[in-house]
Amino acid sequence: MSLSFSLRLILGLLAPTALLAQTAPPPTMADVLATSQPSDWQQPDPDNLLYLDLAAGRVIIELAPQFAPEHVANIRTLAHAGYWNDLAILRVQDNYVVQWGDPNAEDSAKRKSLGDAKTKLPAEFERSSDGLAFTLLDSRDAYAPEVGFVGDFPAARDAARGKVWMTHCYGLVGAGRDNAADSSNGAELYVVIGHAPRHLDRNITSVGRVLQGMELLSSMPRGPAPMGFYTEAAQRIPIRSIRLAADVPAADRSAIEVMRTDTATFQRLIQARRERHEQWFVEPVGKIELCNVPIPVRTPPAIVK
Amino acid sequence: MSLSFSLRLILGLLAPTALLAQTAPPPTMADVLATSQPSDWQQPDPDNLLYLDLAAGRVIIELAPQFAPEHVANIRTLAHAGYWNDLAILRVQDNYVVQWGDPNAEDSAKRKSLGDAKTKLPAEFERSSDGLAFTLLDSRDAYAPEVGFVGDFPAARDAARGKVWMTHCYGLVGAGRDNAADSSNGAELYVVIGHAPRHLDRNITSVGRVLQGMELLSSMPRGPAPMGFYTEAAQRIPIRSIRLAADVPAADRSAIEVMRTDTATFQRLIQARRERHEQWFVEPVGKIELCNVPIPVRTPPAIVK
Repeated sequence: MSLSFSLRLILGLLAPTALLAQTAPPPTMADVLATSQPSDWQQPDPDNLLYLDLAAGRVIIELAPQFAPEHVANIRTLAHAGYWNDLAILRVQDNYVVQWGDPNAEDSAKRKSLGDAKTKLPAEFERSSDGLAFTLLDSRDAYAPEVGFVGDFPAARDAARGKVWMTHCYGLVGAGRDNAADSSNGAELYVVIGHAPRHLDRNITSVGRVLQGMELLSSMPRGPAPMGFYTEAAQRIPIRSIRLAADVPAADRSAIEVMRTDTATFQRLIQARRERHEQWFVEPVGKIELCNVPIPVRTPPAIVK
Repeated sequence: MSLSFSLRLILGLLAPTALLAQTAPPPTMADVLATSQPSDWQQPDPDNLLYLDLAAGRVIIELAPQFAPEHVANIRTLAHAGYWNDLAILRVQDNYVVQWGDPNAEDSAKRKSLGDAKTKLPAEFERSSDGLAFTLLDSRDAYAPEVGFVGDFPAARDAARGKVWMTHCYGLVGAGRDNAADSSNGAELYVVIGHAPRHLDRNITSVGRVLQGMELLSSMPRGPAPMGFYTEAAQRIPIRSIRLAADVPAADRSAIEVMRTDTATFQRLIQARRERHEQWFVEPVGKIELCNVPIPVRTPPAIVK
């Protein structure tokens, strides 16, 4: 910053006003993306990608085994077996969550078999911070002592307790549960479609986040019953399939890259979002909150057709 | 709290275990609502209520003349004249805003006349804190020194500068503008439908917030063009009318009450949302962020039919 400032001072001394006005302003997010290098991006492991296919299109979810190994393993088992195929979106609650699963899950006579998957899993609400790389975000957070990123997942940390957990930002995917902490199995999944309900952090197992296709979930009609449940079967939105990318033939896979968060480029992107220098802004803000930091996703340029 | 605690201690000494287990837990939001009194609620002034009527139903907006007197006056003029009737929702950007207005606003030959309304207004991004009652919320905010409520509007305050402004929480209504700070007139309005874009605070004029019907806006199909603009006229969602409640015959008005924020009841509600004692919660949280504080709205009980 000080180098850039000195350079502009020198240009100011040398240049006429018209040229001075052309000196580059601090970068915007568009600038940071345009100058990013291939090494700033990563392709998620196909074993950690779920394709939720709906009539309206594909939602791509990245699973987070580093946070919820048992839930992710169970979700892989369910996806392998085609458990969700022909099940449905059961619930859309405004400014909260979309949730899917078996509408007959509470009826032991009618519910779909979980096959080889486990019916109950231990709570995986948080994990040890030992050995976990954490990219700190400088921000005053209402809920956690520290916030930042673990891989491409927004997360929070409590150094005093040595714990880290995923945060309920827009697009977070979690495993629905009953009142018992160990009552989830990953068969019922929800996605945050509204303002971050951070009070759910450390109260439920987060299993991943949506990388692409959020708009297909967030624009679904809200259900009329309490908690946004649909009241009639015809209102439910059918799931064509949920498959693990690793189980999908290469030709049917969606090419996708996510920006790495452990790079100087991502720090520049945070800075560009913290200090807004797009022409529209009057007040550059100077602050940013965890769930407002974008983690860019793109189609890998090499295979754009 | 200490009285209640002493009472429970005494009950603990007197009572057998089964009775002790029945002592009342701290209240939940449902408890606070169930015990609220008529004086905890207020009916917004019909001069400050806008009805946005769509084929899908009615959206009710409360205007905030205490923050944006010139914009609110212009919006009243536009509503009186039926300016928005047969205009449309132009833009739905996921996790951001819905925006409506005249699709031909940029075309001087085709655009709809603003009639007696002004074409440009001064920026009303913030206002003086002098004489303005502000209910402080104890919360670490990423963007502002202090946050809380002014009437039933979430707001922020900078005591050092003596300024207060409305915050871009879910449901906030603002006046779209071009790059010039004084280029808005209230004819193009937007509503926040995603995670609070607080970087817009103090960069644009906020004019009110949606009290009811958010789900009609938030579930609209996202537009395919940049910023969520619809690309074809047929994609736009028609506005039947936008009317000021004061201009609507009494029989067609929507009865609505909003919880007051300057009461002990509202403080109990905040506490119930800060410390979650519903049975489902494992971790009571103990924290709350401004945009996660609900400001309850209801149909006045006396006129429930």
